This record gives sequence, C-alpha cells and structure tokens, in this order.
Amino acid sequence: MEKHTLDFWYEFASTYSYLAAERIEPLARKKGVTVNWRPFLLGPIFHAQGWNSSPFKIYKVKGDYMWRDMERLAERYGLPFRIPVANELPQHSVLAARVALCLPDDGPRADFSRRVYRAEWTADKCISDPEVITAILEEMGLEAPALLDRATTPDIKQALKDNMDEAIAKGVFGAPSFTTPDGELFWGDDRLEQALEWVANH
Amino acid sequence: MEKHTLDFWYEFASTYSYLAAERIEPLARKKGVTVNWRPFLLGPIFHAQGWNSSPFKIYKVKGDYMWRDMERLAERYGLPFRIPVANELPQHSVLAARVALCLPDDGPRADFSRRVYRAEWTADKCISDPEVITAILEEMGLEAPALLDRATTPDIKQALKDNMDEAIAKGVFGAPSFTTPDGELFWGDDRLEQALEWVANH
Repeated sequence: MEKHTLDFWYEFASTYSYLAAERIEPLARKKGVTVNWRPFLLGPIFHAQGWNSSPFKIYKVKGDYMWRDMERLAERYGLPFRIPVANELPQHSVLAARVALCLPDDGPRADFSRRVYRAEWTADKCISDPEVITAILEEMGLEAPALLDRATTPDIKQALKDNMDEAIAKGVFGAPSFTTPDGELFWGDDRLEQALEWVANH
Repeated sequence: MEKHTLDFWYEFASTYSYLAAERIEPLARKKGVTVNWRPFLLGPIFHAQGWNSSPFKIYKVKGDYMWRDMERLAERYGLPFRIPVANELPQHSVLAARVALCLPDDGPRADFSRRVYRAEWTADKCISDPEVITAILEEMGLEAPALLDRATTPDIKQALKDNMDEAIAKGVFGAPSFTTPDGELFWGDDRLEQALEWVANH
C-alpha cells in the first residue's frame, strides 16, 4: 500500500494551490491514495529563473487571466473565492509554511493549510500576520504560542529547507505540484485528477 | 445559434495546440458548438513580454516538464506523439499559418491544420519547408502551387496580422486559447472542455 501515496507540493501564496488543497482529500480517498502535505516556498525557485516576483505579477495579461480563471474554477468547484485587495500580493508565506511543518501530517497539517488558504482567498486576511495564524490555531484548539515559538526553531527552518531542496530535486517549478513514488511530476490544480489516477494505477 | 461559436486560437509551433486541434471538433459537435479556426503567431506576443523564444526553451525545467506532460496527455487521449529532434524548436510557423488562412474555415482549414500538426509532432517534419506544406496540400487534393502563391499575397499577410491584433485585443497570451462571443478567454488545451461548456450554456 505504501506506493499509493502522492506528494502534494503547495505554496501558501499560490491561488491554484488553494483549489487543490480544498479538492485533494476527497478525490484521494476515492482512489485509495494517501496524500503527503508538503509545503514549500516558490520565491527562491522563481528567483533562480530570473523573476523577482510571481510571473502573474510580472506578466500582466497572464495575471489578469489568472484571476478570471480562478473565479470561474472556484464557481465550478463550489468553493468560495474573493480577489484580495487588502494585502500586497503575493503574500509572504514563510510563517504559514513553518507552522504547517510543526503539525503532524495525518490531518492537522491539512486542516491548518486549508484554513490558511480560506483566510487568504476568501477573507482577505494577511497570512504573514502572527495574529491571523494564532486565530487559526486557536480555532483548531491548538496551543498557538507554543507552535509559533516552535515555528522558528532551527529544526523547523531546516525542515522547510529540506522540503525545498527535495522539491527542486524532483523538478518542481510551480505550485501546486504533485509527485509520485515512481518519479512522475504533475503541475497545476488541473492535473490533480490525473496525478491521483497515475498513483492508483501504477 | 450564432452565439454557440467558439474561437479556437492556435499557433502551429505549439505542442498543446496539437492536442486541442485533434480533440476540438468531436467535443464541439457533442455540445452543438461551431468552431472558428483562428491561426495566429505567438512570437510577437512573447517578444512583447520580453522573451526572445518560447518560455519552454527559456525555462528549462518547465520545458522538460512540458515534454513529459505532452507524452502522458497524448497517451491519455490516444494520440500519437514523438518529441522532434530533426528541427530547431520552436519551428517557424508563419508559412503554415498563412496557408491555413487561404483555406475556407468550414473543414479544409481544420483538416490542413491537423495534418500540419501531425507532420510536426508525430513525423518530425519541418513545417516551414514549402515541400512539406506542398505534400500536405496534395494529400488533400488541393492545388499546392496556387495556394503557396496566394499565401504570400498582401491580403493573406493582412489576414494573419488582423488575427493577431484581434487575439491580443482579446487578451490572448498563449496557445491554444479559446474565446467566446460573450468575452470569456480560456487558455490551454486543458481548458477546452470548460470553454465548450461555457459556450453551450451561455
């Protein structure tokens, strides 16, 4: 059974990662696939490609398209979505990624991740604000101060760096991405079903 | 009925446009949608974004991914596909685009376009070679010399420029793209079904 796992690489600043985070667990259950939630940061990967921001900001026509595409897809999937106006985009996602890595990957990490995405893409919240993260952790009944302290320890910082090194080694260049035990990479929320089928059938 | 039309914007040098060109007509028929085949060139659009080639060449990890994604999608759709090695990529597509515009958009243009894509993506042919285009036109029972002459007349050159101006005005920035009578833009072969549904339901 161990081979029926899919690594889900997500970036908290990413729009399309929100769609995948909401959709992946029910779809994976139907296919008998276990999901590993792997937060990472796209910033360093984009920098290595010569971009100083998200390509959606650098290429305006592509950015305009992305917002409309997101609106249509969210409606299609029955998910709430609101284009944020209160915070500069893309948001700083390192705090959310580190806190996610403090939580066990058997439910709490996925739950926390979805709540962060909802704060960002449906409630116009600033996800780099420790108070926003604290509120999410408290809603979950978790010890927010202890987790925020742990999020900046060397162990957790290293865990995020390790995730990034592994993502890059696997060829990940955007988010969301999905990697399989037999070495396949799928990029984009629109490849989620295909990635799950691959894992279930190989 | 006129509103049930979809403009299909395709670039002969584009891999994913090949998939859409093969898939679009049967899917459109099922939805009662008429397809307008609109060849255009991505080169000038990419240049305006500061790229001197295809992003798949400039960003190597993205290019590597694209080839694997194409292989998997072609297999999924039951379409032949062979990564070309004989010609530098992206190929020059202006000749094929101009010849396509010489052909009426009620069958022959679609037929020609699919044959060009098959030459390029399944048989490793050079689509800027007039002999390759001649062979395709002759297979179709058409007058190749007359069409090749017509392809470089001011009328046809202007028709291609007009297509490009219209594509840019509609926000097109990649290929394939699909635009609807009510102003929606969908980008990518993976949005084909969604674009057809939109036209059928609006």
